Amino acid sequence: MKAEIIAVGSELLTPDRVDTNSLFLTSELNKLGIEVTRKGVVRDSRADIRDAFSQALARADVIVATGGLGPTEDDLTREAVAELLGRKLELNPEVLRTIQERFRSIGRQMAETNVRQAMVPEGGQVLENKRGSAPGLWLESDGRVIILLPGPPKEMETMFARQVIERLGKRASDKRLIARELHATGIPESDLDERISPIYSKYADVQTTILAAPGEIQIHLRTWSDDARASEKLLDEIVERITIALGENLFSTKAESLEEVVANVLIQNKATISTAESCTGGLLAERLTRTPGSSAYFLGGVVSYSNELKSSWVDVPAEMIQAHGAVSAEVAVALADGIRRRTGGTLGVGITGVAGPSGGTPEKPVGLVHIALADGGAPREHGIRFPGDRERVRWQASQTALDMVRRYYLYASGKRGGAKG
Amino acid sequence: MKAEIIAVGSELLTPDRVDTNSLFLTSELNKLGIEVTRKGVVRDSRADIRDAFSQALARADVIVATGGLGPTEDDLTREAVAELLGRKLELNPEVLRTIQERFRSIGRQMAETNVRQAMVPEGGQVLENKRGSAPGLWLESDGRVIILLPGPPKEMETMFARQVIERLGKRASDKRLIARELHATGIPESDLDERISPIYSKYADVQTTILAAPGEIQIHLRTWSDDARASEKLLDEIVERITIALGENLFSTKAESLEEVVANVLIQNKATISTAESCTGGLLAERLTRTPGSSAYFLGGVVSYSNELKSSWVDVPAEMIQAHGAVSAEVAVALADGIRRRTGGTLGVGITGVAGPSGGTPEKPVGLVHIALADGGAPREHGIRFPGDRERVRWQASQTALDMVRRYYLYASGKRGGAKG
Repeated sequence: MKAEIIAVGSELLTPDRVDTNSLFLTSELNKLGIEVTRKGVVRDSRADIRDAFSQALARADVIVATGGLGPTEDDLTREAVAELLGRKLELNPEVLRTIQERFRSIGRQMAETNVRQAMVPEGGQVLENKRGSAPGLWLESDGRVIILLPGPPKEMETMFARQVIERLGKRASDKRLIARELHATGIPESDLDERISPIYSKYADVQTTILAAPGEIQIHLRTWSDDARASEKLLDEIVERITIALGENLFSTKAESLEEVVANVLIQNKATISTAESCTGGLLAERLTRTPGSSAYFLGGVVSYSNELKSSWVDVPAEMIQAHGAVSAEVAVALADGIRRRTGGTLGVGITGVAGPSGGTPEKPVGLVHIALADGGAPREHGIRFPGDRERVRWQASQTALDMVRRYYLYASGKRGGAKG
Repeated sequence: MKAEIIAVGSELLTPDRVDTNSLFLTSELNKLGIEVTRKGVVRDSRADIRDAFSQALARADVIVATGGLGPTEDDLTREAVAELLGRKLELNPEVLRTIQERFRSIGRQMAETNVRQAMVPEGGQVLENKRGSAPGLWLESDGRVIILLPGPPKEMETMFARQVIERLGKRASDKRLIARELHATGIPESDLDERISPIYSKYADVQTTILAAPGEIQIHLRTWSDDARASEKLLDEIVERITIALGENLFSTKAESLEEVVANVLIQNKATISTAESCTGGLLAERLTRTPGSSAYFLGGVVSYSNELKSSWVDVPAEMIQAHGAVSAEVAVALADGIRRRTGGTLGVGITGVAGPSGGTPEKPVGLVHIALADGGAPREHGIRFPGDRERVRWQASQTALDMVRRYYLYASGKRGGAKG
C-alpha cells in the first residue's frame, strides 16, 4: 500500500518552519506496512489544496493530510476536499456540542467561527480531538482513504494513535518494515563508506542511508518484508558484518546516543565520573546528565572559565598555566587529575580549548581543544583541532571526551583487540 | 514570481530525514522577491520525478530541485528532466575534464559511473560544483526556469550563492520580502495571542506566524512589498504596538536568543555571573557560554550533583539539606549565594529540582525546580513545576533562570514600570 502526506499551511512555506508532522506519520505508516511514496506542502488556498489532493488521489491508496482544519478563514482543507469529492458539507450537531462543551470546560464561550469545525462532508467519519477544538475526518472514495488531521503535533499524534492506527491497520497489507540503526564515531564518512559499501551494496532489497553529523555517523538499514523472521535474520547478518568492518568505531547497534552508551558503560563498571571544563562551558556535564538516573555515576563538574578558578577549584598550578598557557595538554591533564581527586571518583575528564570565533593564535588556532582522561594512573590526552564554528567545536569536543570514556572501558575489558588499558 | 521546490531522494521519505535544503532555498528566493508556493519530496523513480516536474511546470515560473545528481543508478533527476523536456543528453567534455581533475586532485581515479555526471541536456547550462563532483544545471523552457542542484547542503548552498542568485536576480521582480522576528517568554501562548491578535489582525497584508516552544514564543511578521521604505515603516509600527502589548515579556525584536540578550545585558551592566546547578546538569552554564566573548561576564559554574559537593563546593550547610531536602527554596538560595561568594561575581544563580522521570514524591513531584538569583542583597527565588519530560524540564529551568537575570536588570534600570530591584 502506498501513502502520500500533504501538509497544508502557508506558514510551512516560509524559511522559519519545516513540516515535521510527516516524520511521525511516516514512522507510524511504515509500522502498519504502508510505504510513503511522496509528500508535499501546499499553502492555504482552496484551489491549491484541491489540486494537491486530486493529484495524490490518482497515485496513492491513502492520503494523510495535516493542517487547515482550524476555525479561521485560512483553514480550507475541509472545504477543498468536500468540493473535490463532490460532497456537501453538513453541520454535525454532535460535533458542535463537543466543541461547545470543550470551550465551556475551560471557562470560555465558543466563538461563532468555530461552527465551521462542526461541518462534516457527506459520508465522512469524525475523528475526535482530545487535545484541541479541531476534529479530524476519515473519508473514503473509490477504495481510497483520505485522513484529515489537525496541524498541532500533539493533537495530530494523539488523534492518529487513538483513532487512525486501528482503522488503518485493518486495511493494511502484511508487509512490514524491518529496520536497524547503527551509530559510529571517530572515523570520516568516506572511510566508513569505503569499509561498509562492499557489504550493504550486496543487499539490493535493503535500503541503506548514511547520515553524517559532526562527530557521529548513523547507518540506517530498512527493508520491506513479507516474512519478518527472514528479514530480521537478514538485517542481523548485515549488522554483524558492519560491526566487524567498523570495529571499535561502532558504538551502538540499537540507535543509542553516545551519552547513553557511556552511561551504561559507567554503570556496568560501577564507575563514577566528574568533569572540569573550560571551552565546552558545561556541555559535557550536561550530556552526562541527560540520561535518567545519571546520579548513579556522575558526581559533579566544574566549569572553570577563569584561570583563577582552574587553580582554586581543581588545583591547576598557576605556574603551569603561566608556562604552557590555559589551552595546553598539561592543563587538560591537570584539570582531569584535579577534578578526579577533588571528587574522589573513578575517572576525571578535563577539557580546555579555543572554541572561537576569536581568541586563536598561530600556535593555538581556533578549534584546538585538549581533552584528558585521568584514572589515577597514566593520563590519556588528545589535542585535536576541530573544524567549524563555536557550537560545532564545542559539540565535537564533548563527543570526543565521551568517546574517550567509552574506549577506555573497551580497552580495559579487552573486548575488542588491541588492549591498551 | 512563483517558485516551487522539489527535493529528490527516497531517503527523504523515511522517518529519519527531513528536507531542510528547502528552508535555505526559500529564504534565498524570498530575498530575490520570489515567493515559494509549493514544495514536495519525490522518491528516486524516473516516472515520479518526471511527473513532479511536469506538474510544477504547469504552475510555477521557477522550479528549484535538489538531489538525484550523483553518479549512481539511483540518481535520476538529470534523465527524468531531459526526458520531460524532450531534450537529448550529451556528454560535455569540459565537465568530464573538471570531474576527472577533481578526482586527481584528491589522489583518486574517477570511477566510470561518474561519466553520467558529465551528461548535459541540450541547451542546458552547467553550474560548477566547487565542493563536490555533481555539477548543477540551469534549464529554460517556455519562459520557465528549471534549476537542478546537488543534495548535500554545502554543495547546494555554495552553488546557489555563487551561480544562481545573480542569474535569477536578473529575472526577479521588484517585490521584496520585509520581515521581523520577535521573541517573548514568561507568558502562555493563548494569553500572548489574546494580547496581540487585535494588533496583527488589522494588517491584512502582513503574514503573522506565532511559533511556540517550551519557555519561548516567536512572532514572525512578513510582507511582500513594492515599496520597501513604506513596508519597513509599517512593520516597525506593528513591532512597536506589539512591544507595548507584551511589555517585559518581550525580550527581543531582533530574533536574538535569550542567552544572547542576557549576555548583552550583563556586558552593558559590567556584571559577572556564576552558576551552581543540580538538576540542569550544566545546561545553564553551557547556554551562558554559547555566545562568543562569554569570558567577559561568565566566571565559572559548578554542577554539584551530590549533596556532599553542594556543601564542599558552594557551602550549602549539610543540616539545611537534611532539614529541607536538596530540592528546596532554601538550598536554591544557598547555592546562588554560595557560588556568588566563592567566585566573587556580581550575580550567582542556583538551580535544584527533580528533572525526572523518577525521583518524584507527592510533596516534590517530577518537574519541580527551585531557581534562585543572588546579588548580595535579598535573594530572588522561584519554585515552579514544569511540565514535560526530563529534557523539557531542564530546558525550561535554564530558560527561567536566564529570564530572571534579564528581568533583574530590567527592574534595576527601571526601564519598564514596576521597579522591584
